[in-house]
Amino acid sequence: MASPKAGAAAHLGSPDDIEQQFYEALQQGDIERLMAVWADDEDIVCVHPGGPRMVGARAIRASFDAMFSNGSIQAEPEQVRRLQTHSAAVHSVVERIRVMTEEGPQSAWVAATNVYVQTALGWRMVAHHASPGSPREIHDIVETGSVLH
Amino acid sequence: MASPKAGAAAHLGSPDDIEQQFYEALQQGDIERLMAVWADDEDIVCVHPGGPRMVGARAIRASFDAMFSNGSIQAEPEQVRRLQTHSAAVHSVVERIRVMTEEGPQSAWVAATNVYVQTALGWRMVAHHASPGSPREIHDIVETGSVLH
Repeated sequence: MASPKAGAAAHLGSPDDIEQQFYEALQQGDIERLMAVWADDEDIVCVHPGGPRMVGARAIRASFDAMFSNGSIQAEPEQVRRLQTHSAAVHSVVERIRVMTEEGPQSAWVAATNVYVQTALGWRMVAHHASPGSPREIHDIVETGSVLH
Repeated sequence: MASPKAGAAAHLGSPDDIEQQFYEALQQGDIERLMAVWADDEDIVCVHPGGPRMVGARAIRASFDAMFSNGSIQAEPEQVRRLQTHSAAVHSVVERIRVMTEEGPQSAWVAATNVYVQTALGWRMVAHHASPGSPREIHDIVETGSVLH
């Protein structure tokens, strides 16, 4: 049965809308809103930074449940690179994660690839692959790419 | 000008064919064959295990050139999960990498997300995102996913 939140997701119009909902759900620690962005497909995949591959909604939900048990995730997508066909969209983002340390609030960076496909219900996420990045390295390589093209 | 190898890639028929060419090129350390699988788009992205995000063909080529300067890469895709629309394909693979250590040959595992889109020249890779995985973790989570679906 579709939840009201899944219904709300159905009316979102673009991959950017779904991406925004994904990061808002992380920031809010809202597991239902988070899962509503995913496609209903047994081969959806998720890789958290430093973690294993998870396949399917139940494994993915369990991983986010475990993360949210420690609080919400203050992740903001930046430096978004978009590549789109009429039925799929690939967004490469650098996530800025705000974390509290003994020295006060700090930022960490994560490189993430988010893939969305057009489904009968609208755009939905089918893959989220994230890995730790250093800001220096990420900025250097992206800048090199920009200069060369 | 398209090289003969780029021309050969144009006749490959499916995302699986392009994926096979990608891994064969890694195993052969063949940079031209490797670059021929990529789409001609400035937003193609590549993340190597533990590495930064690279955007665009020149940055990606430079990274593989650097890797090949140490030899070819004995990577075999396993446990492939496929998700496809008519213009895009998302393959999640576990790469088995054969490496030579002081104790002899060993295997390492990498979780990779490969994304292909249908272009005017046929299927081409637009994203390769790879991160280190441990075999135990990867097998556990995938098996959990399979049981649940």
